[in-house]
Order: sequence, then C-alpha cells, then structure tokens
Amino acid sequence: MSDGDRPEHSRGGTYTVPGTDYQRDTRYITDRITADARHGWPVEPGRYRLVAARACPWANRSIIVRRLLGLEDAISLGLPGPTHDERSWTFDLDPGGRDPVLGIERLQEAFFARDPEYPRGITVPAVVDVPSGAVVTNDFAQITLDLSTEWTAHHREGAPELYPEHLRDEIDEIAQEVFKDVNNGVYRCGFAGSQEAYDRAYRRLFAALDKLEERLTHRRFLVGDTITEADVRLFTTLVRFDAVYHGHFKCNRNKLSEMPALWAYARDLFQTPGFGDTVDFVQIKQHYYVVHTDINPTRIVPQGPDLSGWVTPHGREALGGRPFGDGTPPGPVRDGERVDPAHTPLR
Amino acid sequence: MSDGDRPEHSRGGTYTVPGTDYQRDTRYITDRITADARHGWPVEPGRYRLVAARACPWANRSIIVRRLLGLEDAISLGLPGPTHDERSWTFDLDPGGRDPVLGIERLQEAFFARDPEYPRGITVPAVVDVPSGAVVTNDFAQITLDLSTEWTAHHREGAPELYPEHLRDEIDEIAQEVFKDVNNGVYRCGFAGSQEAYDRAYRRLFAALDKLEERLTHRRFLVGDTITEADVRLFTTLVRFDAVYHGHFKCNRNKLSEMPALWAYARDLFQTPGFGDTVDFVQIKQHYYVVHTDINPTRIVPQGPDLSGWVTPHGREALGGRPFGDGTPPGPVRDGERVDPAHTPLR
Repeated sequence: MSDGDRPEHSRGGTYTVPGTDYQRDTRYITDRITADARHGWPVEPGRYRLVAARACPWANRSIIVRRLLGLEDAISLGLPGPTHDERSWTFDLDPGGRDPVLGIERLQEAFFARDPEYPRGITVPAVVDVPSGAVVTNDFAQITLDLSTEWTAHHREGAPELYPEHLRDEIDEIAQEVFKDVNNGVYRCGFAGSQEAYDRAYRRLFAALDKLEERLTHRRFLVGDTITEADVRLFTTLVRFDAVYHGHFKCNRNKLSEMPALWAYARDLFQTPGFGDTVDFVQIKQHYYVVHTDINPTRIVPQGPDLSGWVTPHGREALGGRPFGDGTPPGPVRDGERVDPAHTPLR
Repeated sequence: MSDGDRPEHSRGGTYTVPGTDYQRDTRYITDRITADARHGWPVEPGRYRLVAARACPWANRSIIVRRLLGLEDAISLGLPGPTHDERSWTFDLDPGGRDPVLGIERLQEAFFARDPEYPRGITVPAVVDVPSGAVVTNDFAQITLDLSTEWTAHHREGAPELYPEHLRDEIDEIAQEVFKDVNNGVYRCGFAGSQEAYDRAYRRLFAALDKLEERLTHRRFLVGDTITEADVRLFTTLVRFDAVYHGHFKCNRNKLSEMPALWAYARDLFQTPGFGDTVDFVQIKQHYYVVHTDINPTRIVPQGPDLSGWVTPHGREALGGRPFGDGTPPGPVRDGERVDPAHTPLR
C-alpha cells in the first residue's frame, strides 16, 4: 500500500494536506483467497500473482511471508519498480516495461480489470488472478495472514508457524499497536499537514518505540519464542527507519541504531533467511525520495546512511528463542528473485 | 552569511538551482576596522554593533570570538530572529520588532544605509557603524580575525590568543580546507541542483570529515595545543550537524555522534565557556527548516534530535592541551545575551 494509498483529493507527488493529520485511506478490495473458496477465490497453485514492490513496507511483508513459507512455486511474484507517478506503480524494471506474466505496464490496469471505475489508491501488495488479470485483493493485512493459514497445503517442509492459533490474540494486539503508532506512525510524521500534527505523531511514534525497546530487551521476538507475523510487521518499518524515515519523514529523535534492543532485534531478523534477503535499500530510498515531491521537491536521493552495521553481530542468541520453532530456515533465494547485490549489505 | 547569501537570480525561499552545483556568492563589503584606521574605520569601543543571528553558523563564529575575547563592552550585539523572508534577516525578537540600538526592523536597512543600490545578499554577521547606521563589513572570515588582532587593546584579561602569529599559516591552511569541504560543503550537499552535484559534495564532505576524525583522534585541538580560530570555524558547523545538516541537507552517511573523535571534540568545545553557551538549537532548527522552502516546503521543524548527548563526558582532557593557553575561560554570559534555557541542553 503506502504510496499509491493517497487521499482521493490528493494529486501526484502530493501526500501532505495542509492543516491536517495524515489520514490513511484504509478501504481495500477485501476479497480473500481461501482453502474453502468461500469468497469465490480458491487456493490454487499457479493461479495468482503477488504484485509487491520491494520499496514498499506493506508489500515487503508479503514478500517475506511468501518466502518464509516457501510459497514461491504456488504464487508467483511481480515486482514493480521503486518510483511511480500519479498513476502509481509500473513494471518499469521488467523487459519492455511489462510484467512478464500479466503483460501489463501499470498495476492500475489490474485494478481497472477488476473495476473499470476503481476510485481508490492503486496499492501494493495486490494479489492478481492471472486468468482474468484482475486484482483479487489489496488488503495487505489479510494477505499475509491468509498465506499463513489458508495456503498451508502448499507450504514448504519446515515452514514456520507465523500465526499460531494459541498466540493469535497476542499477535493481533501488538500488531494493532505497532500499526497505529509505528508502521503508520512514521507516515503520520512525514505527511503531517501542520506542525501540531507532526508533533503529535512524533510523540506517539517514539513513545511506542520506547515501549518496544523495553519489551525486546529481555525477549528475542515480539510474541512467544519464535518469529511470528508480529515480527514481520515490525521489521519492515524498522529496516526502513534510518534509511528513509529518520530524515525524510523527520522521525529523528534518534536513529534506530541508537536504540540498543530494537537495533539488535532488527539486525537479528535482517540476518535471518527470508527477511534481509528481501530488502533492497536502493529501491527503498529511490521510492521515498523521488515519489514524495511535496516533501522532497528536488528528488535528490541521499547517499547515506552507511548500511554496514546491518551485518554486524547482534548477540540476540543469548536471549534464547528458536527463530523457526520446530521448522527450518528457507533455502537460498530463487533465481530471478534475488536483490541486486549492489543494493544490500548482505553477502 | 549563510542564507541571505543567495545567488542573485534566486528568490525568497529558493536556494537550489536545478542542474547546478551550489555556488556561494563570496563578494562582501570588505572594509576592515583596524587599530590604525587604515580603511577609515578605527577601533573604537561603543561605536560598532555586531549583528549576528544565533541560527547562522557564520555569524555564530563572531558571537563565540567576541565572548572568548571579552569584547562585550567594546562591541554591542544585535540578534536577528531565526527566520526571514526574501528580504532577509529581521529584528523580530526585539521589542517592537526593532533593534534597540540601530532602531531598524530589517538588517537590509543597514546595508541600504551603506549603499542604496546594494545588490547582493543581506548577510550576517554584519558590523554596523552605529552613528551612521551603515554596514562597515559583512566579510565574515575577516571579522573574527580582526576581533583577535585589531581589538587587542580591549580584550579582557586572560583572553586567549585565537590567531597567534606563529600558527597563522597552519590555521589558514586548515581553515581553508574546512571551509571548502565542510563549512560550505554541507551547503553544497543541501542546495545541490542535481543528483550528481549532491553526490560530489557528499563524497568531499565525508572525505574531509574522515580526515578530521583522524587528525583529532590523537590531538585535542586542530592546531597547537589550545583553542584557535580554526576550532571556532569547525565547531559552528559540527554543532549544527546532527540537528540540521544530517537530515535537512542530506549529509547522512552518519551522524556526527557516530564519529568518535569528532563527536568528543565537538562536545569538549561545546562544554567550554564561550562555545556551547552561544548555541541556540531551537533557533538553528527553525532557521533551516522554515527558511529553505524549496527543500522543506511544509516548513515543519523536526522535534529531534535528542540533544542530551552534548553534555555527556567527552574524555578529551586525557589528550592534554590547555584550552585557553596562558589565559582563562570567559565568565558567565552577560544578562540579555543568554540563550533561552529551553533551547539548549546546557545547565
């Protein structure tokens, strides 16, 4: 979602509305793909394509979960480029500027295939029905949960349980707080339409981060002793924090790297197969600094920050925990899905 | 100087020129006030007023040097507010919005008193002849040297030698490098008119900072074993680094606080009477974020960074050195010249 997700009255490059708090449009296409096809969309390997820009934190969640669960053969992956105009995400990185499976140049086309009058933001992640070329859902929060709970028949051997039944209440609760004040909180800072709106968002963001810093000082993961959906959701914001939110969105009380537990936690996840290997820092910076022309009119992309810290030892093993529970880490990233080695500190 | 100092073709709030490297207009009114009055302007206590906005790094130098040398009784101080429009600095913090000594609302008036057709930037610091109300000089680099070398008869007892004869070549050499790649280098990053211009400026800035980090690892001050003009010049950029240059100007390879020697050096100076007690972080942030509307159109001023680190122990005493040489630190800041306690971490 993120940046296609604009208030309807906004125009290309315009994300701030003077005098207002930032309001995320949270109306999505909410169909679900389920094992019992109760919404009309059955789980069916090879039928759907996940369209997810690496730049976008909401889309990054789905890329991580797909890989952790080993759904690469069941659901293919389309990767729009990092920058877009007022008509939103394009497949400008693909040969000929077209998604090789869907054959479209703009993600907009898949939304219009679903509804020719589609009135809202063209957002990623979007799951597209390949035969019809129409978007099934762009409801980012439900997409990852359904990958965990509805696609179980197609999970790889050793796939972790990211949304185990006995922990769902706790995961939902913390995910809700993290969404409100952190995932969306950084956008509320960056797209604030007034000093007062920014000040409020900043206070809420850092109060929430302080609380997470405390929580993660003595436990390795957010919920239970394994990686869950809650960690995926926090990770995609943390990994962008110093690269874009700190400067571009003015989330600058401190860098993530100045919060010892959160920084070690983020590095632990980054170095875990399935997390850091989905992260493209160059695309992330290009996206934010080029697309939001109302807060960065020059479109100049900073060279910093130095990313080498992401691969330094984090020491979190000392807290115990079993990242994959009774499962195993995913194998190497598939051909054609690897992040450009020049865009990541991972070796 | 800084922000009144714009290319002539630029307009209010516009500091970047698309497609270009940032070019500082370095043409000033270069008269000098000397003990022998050879430029027509004699050293004369009570005759001149130093107009120096706390926000501006070039003006901050002159505020520091005046205080280190104890020239408060000889030269009075006018303090424009942090923000300004296309007509430049105003006395909006003074009662009635007028400088109490010069009686003017805008610094521009003192430049026009000197030359009704004055065509260049209205910059601080400016030294104004009180009887005529006309600017004598705004040549910031010469102003501080002349305070050190021409006003000696009026220095306080125990004033340090900031520009000692036997060290002038070394001070000039390092000050020139620091000016080019650091003092002005941060502006070249922030006001770059193209990605390429920014990339060049960023590389030069951090190469210069790395060199300074190395130099200051084993010596307490830049030149000799006491504070000199060279330290004053580096300090005013370093003290603004994390607060404005890191985010607003995209000087973001790392924060100053991530370079151990430079950060300890900057804290050492900050905690030395005459340096940190001239620094108003709130005015600094307001100035940069409100005035440069072409790079921060929302004019929202970040709440960060956390400033508490500035008053932490720096450990630089272990390197030896005698900050004031055979002299002594200045006494408390004068009434009416103190930085608002809410604008500084100093207690």
